[in-house]
Amino acid sequence: MSDVYIVGIDMIRFGRYPEKTVPGLAAEAALLALDDAGLTIRDMQALFCGNLGQASGMVGQRMLAEIGQTGIPVTNVANACATGATAFRDAWMTIKAGVYDTVLAVGVEQMGKGLLGGGGGVSPEGLVGSYTMPAMFAHIGMEHSKRYGTTFAQFAQVSVKNHHHSTLNPKSMYRVETPLKEVMGAEMIAWPLTKLMCSVNVDGSAAAVLMSEKKVRERGLMDRAVRIRASEMSSNPFEDRQMAMPDFSGATRVAAANAYEQAGIGPEEVNLVELHDCFATAELVHYENLGLCAFGDAGKLIDDGTTALGGRVPVNVSGGLLSKGHPLGATGIANIYEVSTHLRGKAGERQVEGARIGLTHVVGGGPGMGTACAIHVLEKV
Amino acid sequence: MSDVYIVGIDMIRFGRYPEKTVPGLAAEAALLALDDAGLTIRDMQALFCGNLGQASGMVGQRMLAEIGQTGIPVTNVANACATGATAFRDAWMTIKAGVYDTVLAVGVEQMGKGLLGGGGGVSPEGLVGSYTMPAMFAHIGMEHSKRYGTTFAQFAQVSVKNHHHSTLNPKSMYRVETPLKEVMGAEMIAWPLTKLMCSVNVDGSAAAVLMSEKKVRERGLMDRAVRIRASEMSSNPFEDRQMAMPDFSGATRVAAANAYEQAGIGPEEVNLVELHDCFATAELVHYENLGLCAFGDAGKLIDDGTTALGGRVPVNVSGGLLSKGHPLGATGIANIYEVSTHLRGKAGERQVEGARIGLTHVVGGGPGMGTACAIHVLEKV
Repeated sequence: MSDVYIVGIDMIRFGRYPEKTVPGLAAEAALLALDDAGLTIRDMQALFCGNLGQASGMVGQRMLAEIGQTGIPVTNVANACATGATAFRDAWMTIKAGVYDTVLAVGVEQMGKGLLGGGGGVSPEGLVGSYTMPAMFAHIGMEHSKRYGTTFAQFAQVSVKNHHHSTLNPKSMYRVETPLKEVMGAEMIAWPLTKLMCSVNVDGSAAAVLMSEKKVRERGLMDRAVRIRASEMSSNPFEDRQMAMPDFSGATRVAAANAYEQAGIGPEEVNLVELHDCFATAELVHYENLGLCAFGDAGKLIDDGTTALGGRVPVNVSGGLLSKGHPLGATGIANIYEVSTHLRGKAGERQVEGARIGLTHVVGGGPGMGTACAIHVLEKV
Repeated sequence: MSDVYIVGIDMIRFGRYPEKTVPGLAAEAALLALDDAGLTIRDMQALFCGNLGQASGMVGQRMLAEIGQTGIPVTNVANACATGATAFRDAWMTIKAGVYDTVLAVGVEQMGKGLLGGGGGVSPEGLVGSYTMPAMFAHIGMEHSKRYGTTFAQFAQVSVKNHHHSTLNPKSMYRVETPLKEVMGAEMIAWPLTKLMCSVNVDGSAAAVLMSEKKVRERGLMDRAVRIRASEMSSNPFEDRQMAMPDFSGATRVAAANAYEQAGIGPEEVNLVELHDCFATAELVHYENLGLCAFGDAGKLIDDGTTALGGRVPVNVSGGLLSKGHPLGATGIANIYEVSTHLRGKAGERQVEGARIGLTHVVGGGPGMGTACAIHVLEKV
């Protein structure tokens, strides 16, 4: 079966674009990705489009009406915070299948301002606490604190790190330093999460052109290609705990185990990670779920700078969802853009030196909705 | 590359189930399809779920919470009236890719009563006439009349035929004869479409278990298998006409040409067809788009009984969307169920004798939304 490569990938700067439309935002990223590949919409054999806000509104077809209505198959997908990564994986699948050689994947969201709110859906009886997203991830943090002694300051330090990273990323929504004192002193949303420890609702889009190995060679695009070593997804396997509390760890662990197996590597071989830091607590929990450290050791990783730029395995060098922003449907492909940019050695000031293998992770859902997780392992060519 | 087979497929009887939930309806069809295959949810390696009404609501994951939360990858898709067929094709793709051997595809919709209404989305400036679905398909019929002299009675006869077929289908919403006089005399919705020439809004669900050839042999399921000879999708290629009127023919012609090529057959080899008769006018237009006759000859096919049960190529023996009902997200897989049932020789009173090859077609969209079309060619094993 053919290896699949990314030959073009880009994102718009995340921000607030109330004057634009969802298909228009999608089109901007698509054109950037096509330019990056040196291709046009006429070269695309299929389109996968991820969006939540207008999930039933044929965003993919409407985008094509703006940039070239060529008659190609369009699939619109929605999968909570894994929406963009799902579109990317479905595109990957068609090339693996040998059905297409060149496929476009786009993720887009127009959110306006505010905090990441409720999860929608109907909550099963007995679920603990509030059903807003900040409350759920506050619970997850408190659980970690109770079990391993993780401190408020350690969670807050995640936000300090990611905001610092974002000052080096011109495509980030925010680009300001947030010292520990400022993070800990910000408005408390749901203990231990202050406002600066919650991801940013923004508008954004990201797109990727995927290509079969044969076509990459034929087109002479190997110099800009990034190899997809693994593409995995999961939902949350049942655990008793879910009767009382929604869970984002189970799905991540399943997808991570499968992704490492598919890639034929272990977590110690990963040089950088973009993971789903929708809230600061989530980042620490996912260090463990992704096998970057043993269970209970996440606090140490943030304390000793292992996951900061310059550390052994920098995490969320883009600024992460906490500072770059989290336009739901776009986030999955934006994470893949960030890792790809490092593997190509084109990340400028924030370049992770010598990066050969990177991992991207998104996970979303909510109480009564279940979970969607997607993990990709990417490799420098 | 492996051939892909359907080894389990079923649908609930379409109807009005206001007391049920969308995931609950999906679960019913999924369990029926699993039973038909003699498998359980534990055998499924991935799930593709199609639904429009709750397109951003993780219907697939919520269905798994009811029938077995095994942690498998779930993708939720939405593609207008092609939603169910899109889920089916995405499932097919994963097996073609060799990534999975056994995959579940489900389509579901809970619509309540009423006519198929507006298309949503924003209409481009200059689009002719009303943007409701009946008005669009009235236009399409009038165009056909103007060009080829197709009559009101010929359009009405489509509805007579499909309602008759539905009297033989226990899973159809309606099962009553509607004589020509009654169809033509029913409430006029949009000339030449009376109320009995518009598809029925209903609740419904359908599901299929797809399997790789290797696994079918390993499991000894070839006796119940249906081979997928072709799976194609398209969107609407740009034509000037679309500046004034939405178009469902262009996408159908593209997908049909590709499907016949993929299957290595011509339209004359097809023994039965389930096509997208969302309105009576659509059925005649699609006879031509699918190559069942030359352009302009659709009226003759309905006049001489070619497409009625017992004719050369029966169309919509299930009763079609006009009488069986059209629960948007479910329709694509329900059409595949109908054709599969004939290829297995299990269609009872309405069996198309000697059926070896069948074709299914759905197409949807609306003004300002673009079009999604899916065509599958299925073959008796």
